[in-house]
Amino acid sequence: MRARFQIITQHDPDEIIALDAGLGFERTSGTVIVHIFTQRGRSIQDKQLVYSTLAQQLAEAGVDGGDLFVSYFEDGPEDWSFADGRAQYIEGDLPAPGH
Amino acid sequence: MRARFQIITQHDPDEIIALDAGLGFERTSGTVIVHIFTQRGRSIQDKQLVYSTLAQQLAEAGVDGGDLFVSYFEDGPEDWSFADGRAQYIEGDLPAPGH
Amino acid sequence: MRARFQIITQHDPDEIIALDAGLGFERTSGTVIVHIFTQRGRSIQDKQLVYSTLAQQLAEAGVDGGDLFVSYFEDGPEDWSFADGRAQYIEGDLPAPGH
Repeated sequence: MRARFQIITQHDPDEIIALDAGLGFERTSGTVIVHIFTQRGRSIQDKQLVYSTLAQQLAEAGVDGGDLFVSYFEDGPEDWSFADGRAQYIEGDLPAPGH
Repeated sequence: MRARFQIITQHDPDEIIALDAGLGFERTSGTVIVHIFTQRGRSIQDKQLVYSTLAQQLAEAGVDGGDLFVSYFEDGPEDWSFADGRAQYIEGDLPAPGH
Repeated sequence: MRARFQIITQHDPDEIIALDAGLGFERTSGTVIVHIFTQRGRSIQDKQLVYSTLAQQLAEAGVDGGDLFVSYFEDGPEDWSFADGRAQYIEGDLPAPGH
């Protein structure tokens, strides 16, 4: 599956503020914020699986669970162009997810 | 309240283009763009209060009102994981805003 | 038209992963990801025109079509403050698009 699209931006520790929402997490200077932008259509359970899998795989890479913050924002199939200025989901090059 | 989550990315002046939409603002090389990602549910009045409070507090820190640009994007309670790969609003660790 | 608002963040090649979704694009180390945040209201055809125009104009600046990835996220007129902590579309300083 060749559908991985990621931008990594590195920050100095003082450029990230991520408190604990009162939940008692310990954050270190190694906080990782994952900001997911993707298409509508995944269920709440699917999203929970994304978060838990992220935590599990990042733990293997040395990221503490307390340091992982995730947000998730959604749009539609007409909102993506993978290359060449074409809207591949709309123009039939790619099947839209869930269809 | 321990609910502050911010990423600061610093840019050279030539990496930010923020014209005035014809409104006649003067922008300096100290333009600040605040890109808010948060949950649905705040009223228009609440949002106006966010913008005016931001302007007021940033003015105290030396940011000119003409240099402050804000955008606001919304998602839902299932779209946040504060730590440990859990969806805290969904799993009951945190009450969802407005509930 | 003085309505251009852009932030440019430069990345080392290993900070961007943009595979081809199985479509066979060749990406170079010069991949450009354009993340559009704007108001609701444009049609699918309008969006396709945005993508194709972007590709055309970036090609003139030396960006290969295979290196251009675009995403598009939408909000509403109450979600923008152009300066001074005011919501200009709401407070009547600017007509909301499409009205």
